[in-house]
Amino acid sequence: MYRTHTNGQLRAQHIGQEVTLSGWVQKTRDKGFMVWVDLRDRYGVTQLIFDAQRTQKNMMQQAQKLGREFVIQVSGKVIERESKNPNMPTGDIEILVSKVTILNASLTPPFTIEDTTDGGEDLRMKYRYLDIRRNPVRNNLIFRHKVSMAVRNYLSEQGFVDVETPYLIKSTPEGARDFVVPSRMNQGQFYALPQSPQTFKQLLMVGGLDKYFQIVKCFRDEDLRADRQPEFTQIDCEMAFVEQEDILNTFEGLTRHLLKEINGVEVGAFPRMQYDDAMRLYGNDKPDIRFGMEFGELNQVAKHKEFKVFNSAELVVGIAIPGANSFTRKEIDKLIDWVKRPQIGALGMVYCRCNEDGSFKSSVDKFYDQEDLAKWAETTGAKPGDLICVLSGQTNKVRAQLSALRMELAERLSLRKPDEFAPLWVVDFPLLELDEETGNYHAMHHPFTSPKPGQMALLDTHPGEVKANAYDLVLNGNEIGGGSIRICDKQTQAIMLKHLGFSEQEAKEQFGFLMDAFEYGAPPHGGIAFGLDRLVAILGGQETIRDFIAFPKNNSGRDVMIDAPAPLDDPQLTELHLKLDIQE
Amino acid sequence: MYRTHTNGQLRAQHIGQEVTLSGWVQKTRDKGFMVWVDLRDRYGVTQLIFDAQRTQKNMMQQAQKLGREFVIQVSGKVIERESKNPNMPTGDIEILVSKVTILNASLTPPFTIEDTTDGGEDLRMKYRYLDIRRNPVRNNLIFRHKVSMAVRNYLSEQGFVDVETPYLIKSTPEGARDFVVPSRMNQGQFYALPQSPQTFKQLLMVGGLDKYFQIVKCFRDEDLRADRQPEFTQIDCEMAFVEQEDILNTFEGLTRHLLKEINGVEVGAFPRMQYDDAMRLYGNDKPDIRFGMEFGELNQVAKHKEFKVFNSAELVVGIAIPGANSFTRKEIDKLIDWVKRPQIGALGMVYCRCNEDGSFKSSVDKFYDQEDLAKWAETTGAKPGDLICVLSGQTNKVRAQLSALRMELAERLSLRKPDEFAPLWVVDFPLLELDEETGNYHAMHHPFTSPKPGQMALLDTHPGEVKANAYDLVLNGNEIGGGSIRICDKQTQAIMLKHLGFSEQEAKEQFGFLMDAFEYGAPPHGGIAFGLDRLVAILGGQETIRDFIAFPKNNSGRDVMIDAPAPLDDPQLTELHLKLDIQE
Repeated sequence: MYRTHTNGQLRAQHIGQEVTLSGWVQKTRDKGFMVWVDLRDRYGVTQLIFDAQRTQKNMMQQAQKLGREFVIQVSGKVIERESKNPNMPTGDIEILVSKVTILNASLTPPFTIEDTTDGGEDLRMKYRYLDIRRNPVRNNLIFRHKVSMAVRNYLSEQGFVDVETPYLIKSTPEGARDFVVPSRMNQGQFYALPQSPQTFKQLLMVGGLDKYFQIVKCFRDEDLRADRQPEFTQIDCEMAFVEQEDILNTFEGLTRHLLKEINGVEVGAFPRMQYDDAMRLYGNDKPDIRFGMEFGELNQVAKHKEFKVFNSAELVVGIAIPGANSFTRKEIDKLIDWVKRPQIGALGMVYCRCNEDGSFKSSVDKFYDQEDLAKWAETTGAKPGDLICVLSGQTNKVRAQLSALRMELAERLSLRKPDEFAPLWVVDFPLLELDEETGNYHAMHHPFTSPKPGQMALLDTHPGEVKANAYDLVLNGNEIGGGSIRICDKQTQAIMLKHLGFSEQEAKEQFGFLMDAFEYGAPPHGGIAFGLDRLVAILGGQETIRDFIAFPKNNSGRDVMIDAPAPLDDPQLTELHLKLDIQE
Repeated sequence: MYRTHTNGQLRAQHIGQEVTLSGWVQKTRDKGFMVWVDLRDRYGVTQLIFDAQRTQKNMMQQAQKLGREFVIQVSGKVIERESKNPNMPTGDIEILVSKVTILNASLTPPFTIEDTTDGGEDLRMKYRYLDIRRNPVRNNLIFRHKVSMAVRNYLSEQGFVDVETPYLIKSTPEGARDFVVPSRMNQGQFYALPQSPQTFKQLLMVGGLDKYFQIVKCFRDEDLRADRQPEFTQIDCEMAFVEQEDILNTFEGLTRHLLKEINGVEVGAFPRMQYDDAMRLYGNDKPDIRFGMEFGELNQVAKHKEFKVFNSAELVVGIAIPGANSFTRKEIDKLIDWVKRPQIGALGMVYCRCNEDGSFKSSVDKFYDQEDLAKWAETTGAKPGDLICVLSGQTNKVRAQLSALRMELAERLSLRKPDEFAPLWVVDFPLLELDEETGNYHAMHHPFTSPKPGQMALLDTHPGEVKANAYDLVLNGNEIGGGSIRICDKQTQAIMLKHLGFSEQEAKEQFGFLMDAFEYGAPPHGGIAFGLDRLVAILGGQETIRDFIAFPKNNSGRDVMIDAPAPLDDPQLTELHLKLDIQE
């Protein structure tokens, strides 16, 4: 037996006991006549003591030679510490060691195994197994485990059945790119890895399973942006005989349960916001509502003067930044530079100071008088002491720009508090989205989403206006889940696929099995999927998902620790009926 | 809202209530003036009644037209049944329907949705969503969910952390064949899908996570035998600072918990058997010990006469079949034919009847007298009324043959009771296994398994005799789990890989990251993996794993429902830097 206790376990009550501990050498302090060693494992740190009076000489020497991250086993007596450490759970005691065994030596680690490390991202990823020894990373993984367990137990108690759906499925060229898997036994054919178990969970509903969930890996071969992973984890759920309202209530219940169980936070009924309102008030379909700064649309009160920039704009829109009248001219100029960066893309920014005395001072005083500016303040909800920032241009673009500015300022003003949670349902999403490059419409959620009742006719005439039975759950400015009520009859599904540009042949080849299933008594059904990586990060008060994934990939999709992907042997390729087709 | 209750919920206490139900039409009985409909969902069946006196005429007609598997919603009053059905939980009541809505019609299903169906395997797989509506299949999936939840909650309570390991990893040409995934972003390179998260879980131990588990999909591109799937599910576990004893105790605890929680069966301490003994007594490393019929090795008492068949054999070995002296000559001849089938491969079988009067009658009376046969009976444990079956030949072959015969007879004699559970640890497996075709040794468990202490030296001289710290958990004649204490130092791992035929270069390329990790303070560790598909099937009293998988693949690795794998579009291949290399 390697240990009688863990390194987080011993207290004053154990004083006098003989114990055996194992773990890693966190650090040693050598005073010559006395050596202290901090022994670490997942559960904590226990101080070991060797002293010249009570410890055999050769063991004393052994202790002096212990290096950082050596794995050792010690036996000894629990004694009271002379100087207790109230910051450590085991701070009342130490172990007077009578036996040491080095279980495994260690080279000097390439970075320090401390809460704050000197290792850069690349080094930490290459030696991820050392990085995981650090408290913050290990605690994140344990935190993720707790969230997963809480999700599973809650849904299971609600009657959901965890069903494993297949990973080797069929490629569908539509949507994001699939990762594919060549089949050796079926020459020239390929499986695809699922982007989500969407069609399978719908088939489970057709199969009468009624309530399904799964915490499942999904795969997308996309060009990676920061904080995107080619493989990611979904909490995937589906219910039969439900309307949108049933789903919102069920998963509001789950989210409320998690916030209480994991974060100890009680949240009331989640507000619901129409997609159109979210876009109008926040310029964004996933608004962070922990703070205000709602958009004020200024067309009525800013397009009546001679200011051409506004007069030629589709939308003039502003926000009031609380207390920002204190910004210096230089600070404001920097803000203007910030919105003009190519990532944001504004052409400029108009501002208006709201003075404490009720007067206004704007960058466009040439065009607008105090009365005009008072209306701007009214529309944006600005109070004395605030700063109004105004952007103008094409509606979608200017909304996105002002949304970015709103988030940036909230960040700078510390309004995005990590321990505050503001969930929000965004509902009534458009069914289709216009691809401005190609001029084609594609499904905003996915091709299985049902339009709102009675809106099918609009598909032909005003496709962009059709609303869907689709909803997103937003938490602190992040989409943590999204779903829809599905189409459940063959005819509607066929019409939908046609509108998405599928020929009848393509529709049959790719989704024939689903449409066939709809002909054998498909119940009304709908569902939702949560991004577990992001959900866990947000519940953990952080925003980087990589810190909550044990072995993440870098932005080139590489695992730098195991060095994957890698070339294959020729015989392996031949067996798979493949040849490389390398472009120089 | 589609329903106020499920179809399994209503009882006598609900009589008089107005309810709304939804579900599938299981069957209708039409007496003209009265129509009964059985309405089914996941939770049960509720009887609906329409009668000419109390039901509007047009609704009566509607009821008469309801086809099998139509999805309907009904509202009505719960009334007491005239003739109650005590075999149905809802058998005291029926619903006098006042409103019917057809939510979705259904074509006539291709097979009957009943407990016993007329659908063949192929049809059931093609329409798996209909197959899942059948009670036995649906109950299997729900049963699997219960087992998974019980496993997760038990391990979590024991301090194990569920960590998700990556699915896109690196191919290792050794062992079974990998499924591979071409990388678009890394031209000419491939990921592999994991055959198990083996190296990652070991790295988590190096990372100090101490106790890890995961219920995880694994992939093997093997030629499929019956009841093997290219993707399968493992309960994967690893622990640090443990010896074999710790692991056996921990997972004996898990298994005992499952048997109690899921099957209501209390099992005592699991017996442990050495691999050598399992082979000697049962001819098999996963013996079913629910019944006896242990092997009796007869070399001492059967090779002293003139019977050349035995005298030239390496091993003569028999079993006593209880009560089988009642077999007719014809039955015994059939048994001889059975062992001579090519799948078994015996050249013949000697038998000996043990008569009730204590005398013997054998098929080799020409060579052996009553005294000889009495010794056979003694050695095989045969009692009056039994039949002794004796095979002879090369040790490994004859053991496998007799083991097959033992299992076959146990099956025929109903000794393999599905509700009886006999777990067994088989320990002290050989480290290496001789590949008789190539003459090379390969790892019996895997290359990371540690040899028993002090046996490293034997590797050079008697590789086949080295025993490993490896163990299997056997339940009712099936290996449900297997694991080992791992190597945790670079030098031993290097020696092991060398003995398995890896060059230094290959070892470094494929497992360099693991051996590097061992240099930074790797703790002693070991683990186990359970095959969840099989475990669930056995706990469910069945042996076919396919019945416990929602969407299984057939023996060609195809999903016949979605028709995967399938050809890819050319642009998809080009993007992946691949060309097909089809052999005619």
